[in-house]
Amino acid sequence: MRAVIPYKKQNAKSRLSPVLSLEEREHFVELMLRDVVKSLKEADIKNIDILTTPSNGVPQDLEVNIHSSEHDLNEAINDYLEKMQDPVLVIMADLPMVSPKHLKEISSADEDLVIVPGKGGGTNILFIKNPDKFHVKYYGSSFLNHCNIAKEMQQSIHVYDSFLLSTDIDEPHDLVEIMLHGHGASREYVTEKFDVKTGKARVKLCI
Amino acid sequence: MRAVIPYKKQNAKSRLSPVLSLEEREHFVELMLRDVVKSLKEADIKNIDILTTPSNGVPQDLEVNIHSSEHDLNEAINDYLEKMQDPVLVIMADLPMVSPKHLKEISSADEDLVIVPGKGGGTNILFIKNPDKFHVKYYGSSFLNHCNIAKEMQQSIHVYDSFLLSTDIDEPHDLVEIMLHGHGASREYVTEKFDVKTGKARVKLCI
Repeated sequence: MRAVIPYKKQNAKSRLSPVLSLEEREHFVELMLRDVVKSLKEADIKNIDILTTPSNGVPQDLEVNIHSSEHDLNEAINDYLEKMQDPVLVIMADLPMVSPKHLKEISSADEDLVIVPGKGGGTNILFIKNPDKFHVKYYGSSFLNHCNIAKEMQQSIHVYDSFLLSTDIDEPHDLVEIMLHGHGASREYVTEKFDVKTGKARVKLCI
Repeated sequence: MRAVIPYKKQNAKSRLSPVLSLEEREHFVELMLRDVVKSLKEADIKNIDILTTPSNGVPQDLEVNIHSSEHDLNEAINDYLEKMQDPVLVIMADLPMVSPKHLKEISSADEDLVIVPGKGGGTNILFIKNPDKFHVKYYGSSFLNHCNIAKEMQQSIHVYDSFLLSTDIDEPHDLVEIMLHGHGASREYVTEKFDVKTGKARVKLCI
């Protein structure tokens, strides 16, 4: 099997701009990428590809394969899948709470396709056993898109239910989850930078 | 083991008021309660207690035990726990996406305490094997409170990671998750009442 991580550093995570500057956001996405790669390696996934645009610098010391594409996310991943015969795990770079245990469970499912839903209809991880019988369609309700594509292609589906993996880091309140439940370089960065305030409702980031 | 569900119908879920009237919210919390009770029964949990205030009507046909208390949530649950010797599952009434499989997994954990975190530091389910060695402290960062209390009482902890159980239904965007991932009476109600709009970002409720 292989893992592929779509990655964009330049001007990444604009919805975090109320709490992090451009420079900080670009540093932080790299830390999240490092945490994702670390968990993949600890789960014994040796073939790791990063799919990025020509202008996006992936740190040299990560020891991963770099594929660059000028296409949009869907086209870039579908071009990639077309060339693959072995199972492919597509994992987003903004999932720093992923653990080796999650990855082992996902990659050992019996079904043809494992979908890990994100909040609001997103797809955070796909494990595609038969890349010639699937294509991706991110954006909008990609969870439903991917369920429908799998059904059309007669691929069986397992929906993997995880709070930590449903939490892609897009908005300031997502950083609270890293502080409470995360690990690694991204957690270290967030806990050094922020404090939280607690009241009667949900915990909030102190800005 | 027993399950206990804190329940408040009167003026419930005020944060849903942009999309549901008072009457609709009071009806909807009852539907969510019904879904939770149904999953508990299907998981073979026979002793179900609902902890409510004297003025809150619990439907007669639910076949559950009703305990009423005038105290606040923490005091009411702690009074309840004090009287119990057997393991207690404390489950919130606004978790209509709970399934019998979740409940079986939670109640078969080896640890003394299972915590199911909610978004923003909340605690959505607690499974307390030794109710004489634990007390609850909801509100604020209750997840951290409950971890700390367990440590003080030398109780081992398992954190149960579930997206569906992290999603307590408080705000309009939470209703989208019921439409996409829910089941039962609450899903039927939400899908009849609302539509969703999809764009490039997260799926949103049409109001």
